This record gives sequence, C-alpha cells and structure tokens, in this order.
Amino acid sequence: MSSKAVVLFSGGQDSTTCLFWALGKFDLVHAVSIVYGQRHSVEIEAAKTIAQLSNVTHEIVEVPQVLVGTSPLVSGDPVGQYDCVDDLPGGIEPTFVPGRNALFLVIAANRAASVGATDIVTGVCEEDYGGYPDCRRAFIDSMEGALSLGFSGDEKEFTIHTPLMRLTKKATVEMSMSMDGCMDAVAYSHTCYNGQVPPCGKCHACHLRQRGFDDAGVPDPLITRLESHGARI
Amino acid sequence: MSSKAVVLFSGGQDSTTCLFWALGKFDLVHAVSIVYGQRHSVEIEAAKTIAQLSNVTHEIVEVPQVLVGTSPLVSGDPVGQYDCVDDLPGGIEPTFVPGRNALFLVIAANRAASVGATDIVTGVCEEDYGGYPDCRRAFIDSMEGALSLGFSGDEKEFTIHTPLMRLTKKATVEMSMSMDGCMDAVAYSHTCYNGQVPPCGKCHACHLRQRGFDDAGVPDPLITRLESHGARI
Repeated sequence: MSSKAVVLFSGGQDSTTCLFWALGKFDLVHAVSIVYGQRHSVEIEAAKTIAQLSNVTHEIVEVPQVLVGTSPLVSGDPVGQYDCVDDLPGGIEPTFVPGRNALFLVIAANRAASVGATDIVTGVCEEDYGGYPDCRRAFIDSMEGALSLGFSGDEKEFTIHTPLMRLTKKATVEMSMSMDGCMDAVAYSHTCYNGQVPPCGKCHACHLRQRGFDDAGVPDPLITRLESHGARI
Repeated sequence: MSSKAVVLFSGGQDSTTCLFWALGKFDLVHAVSIVYGQRHSVEIEAAKTIAQLSNVTHEIVEVPQVLVGTSPLVSGDPVGQYDCVDDLPGGIEPTFVPGRNALFLVIAANRAASVGATDIVTGVCEEDYGGYPDCRRAFIDSMEGALSLGFSGDEKEFTIHTPLMRLTKKATVEMSMSMDGCMDAVAYSHTCYNGQVPPCGKCHACHLRQRGFDDAGVPDPLITRLESHGARI
C-alpha cells in the first residue's frame, strides 16, 4: 500500500520546505492550505503556485469566522514594524492567534482520515517563533495523543511530523538547499505578514526570513526571482 | 472577579442541560453554537430560542467547510432509521464525524481566551453515544492538556467540564428536572438527526432521547409542548 501524508501548507518558506521533505518520505502527499482570516490572500496564491509546481493534490479550506482574537493577523490592526531583527520584542508576539495550530491540526487530521492517511506534517518550529506556545513540540505531542484518541481511540493513530522543530532559520534554508527543486519552489513562497510583494522587509516574519538566508550565506530565491523581473528591493 | 464559562451549546437536550448546570456554577455564561454542515438548521433555531429564554450571551460560529467525511451529518446521505432502540447497531455509529469534538473544543477555547474564561463546558457523554471515540473522558482529558499547552503553555490553563460524562439518558433527564427552568428550556431543544419537528422518532438520536424520558418516567416536554399546539405525534 502506498504511504500517504497530509501537509499543512501555508505557502510560506517553512511549509514549502516541509512539503518537499514529505515528498521525499511518502508516496502521496496531500497539501492543505487554510484561510483563517489572514489579512491577505497573497500566501494562498503562493500555495497554489507551489502545489502546481510540486505536483501534489492541494485543498484550500476557508474558515474565516473560526478564530477571533487581538492578533493583527485576524483583527485587521497593523502588524508591528521593526528596523532590524535585533529590535524584535521577546515574549509572546502580538501576532499569536489563540488556537491556530490546534485548529490546523484538527483539520489536517480530518483530511487525513478522509484520504486514508495517518501521517501529518507541519512546519512549526520552537526556534525564532515569537514565543508562540503552540509551536513547541510539547504541544504537538499532546495534540498527537488527543487527536489519536478522538479519531479512533488508538493512542498511536496519528504521527505528527515536525521536521523543522529544532532548526534555526539558517538550518531550514540549508535543508531546502539539500532537496531537489525545493529552492525553486521557495522562490514562489510568501512570508511577509503585510502581504506585500516584494516583501515589506520590516515585519517580524520578513526579518526572520532574511536572517535565515543571511546566516546561510545564500540569497533568498524569492528576492532573486523578483529582481530578475525588474522589481526594486 | 466574576467567574465565566464557555458552554458548547448545540440546542439539543444534553447541551441545554449543561447550559443550566453552568448557570448554577458560574456568574457569566457564554454559549457557543457551531454550524458545521449539519443537515438542517432546526437545532440552531432551538439554540437561539433557549439562549434567549436563559439570558446568556450567545454566539453562532459557522464552519461549513471545515469537516469532511462519510457521516450523513455532513455528507447529505440519509440517516439510519430504526424501529426500536434495541435495533441500534453497536460499534462506532456511521454518524461519527471525525474531529468534530476536537474542532468544537478548539473554537470554545479560542472564545474562552477572547472573553477571559478558562472554564469550558461540553455535554459529551460516554453512555449511549454510539461508540464515538471523541465522547470519552480520556479524549477530553487529553484535549484539556493539549489546548492548555497550546494557548498559554500552562498545562492547567483550561478546565473542560463534562457534567453528563457518566450519566445515562435517564440520569440526564433527572438532572434537568432538578434545575429550575431547565425542563422548560428542554421543551424547546432539538435532537432529531433528520431535523424533523415533531421529531421523526426513528433515528438513533430520537430513540435515545425517548428512552431517557421513558426510563425516568416523565414525558418529554418537547412532545408535550408540541401536542399542546395541536401536533399529532
């Protein structure tokens, strides 16, 4: 029987890297993108493009009303702007959306049950994540157990893979470089919280992405691609 | 500080009983009804009516695309019809929607975080529930831990109350009878999987509801109310 996995796929750099990781491990990959009230649809368009390039099945699930909170990612308030990466505040970032990763994992598990998979892949990472409590492996372990119990009663039903969990952004870039075709896909990924193309370069997400490429000593293929089309960045 | 709880409130008999249980325990109750693709809106109308009668804040969250599966509750296929309660099949009922209670609890936790509550109430029950794995306390315990870790990092952040967990339907009826105003509200609750008013009397849910009232030796106040309005049942 062919192995199958569901990948939570936002269209960002991290989930694009996870998509290619999954393509190397499983026979079939089903990518699931979730529109939960983000400020912009740019990342969903990025997800569509990368899914087509990668030849995976792709589903977009729209859940606009499900999560509420004060995060600018769902409230419509402006996202914080920082001059450089060292200015980023500590603690839990105000962009935290309470329950976001829990919701995503429930949807992924539902789709896994639907396509006959028990493996789920998500790009959450304890490094560089603004202190989001739902990006830690302890949370993932707990959800893995809860979803297993809730879907089949078997405590080991699901395996939630987090290939980036302990990686710095630099190491994530290096992983992308090691996988055939991944950097070509990352060139279409979207990260900027402000939904700007070219990216704003000032938000939390832009700063962390840029630091990863700087530390790895390679240019961001998205910037290279946009510049080759004449963008000034 | 006043105590607050979020109640998952479908508009059915069990969640109506839980709503009154919560009203006895907490100063403020916020009821959350979730429309997830059920075959009918009758139970949401029931929820609205009961929330008004009970003077609680009430929110309806529409998530029509979030859950998929073969359950007739989301697929549109016909629901099983049985002549009597003893004909109900064992094992997991085909009405099981994979991830439903996990999704509901994530939404409840998100709303709890939003209104400043850490107590969540749900009417799930290990008795009489068609073998649904997500109605067992082991699952609830696991989700309580997972959501706590994911929302605040504190393993004890949330308490998920399941006042009906170990009750038979008969005992649930007796609990309703013990709480002021509860039976008057149950008279407006909706249970029938087929969305019929008067209830079809043939589906799994109708049979279990009727058995509870029969075992408790009291008439179902919904039936009494409908008959007083001239319905033939």
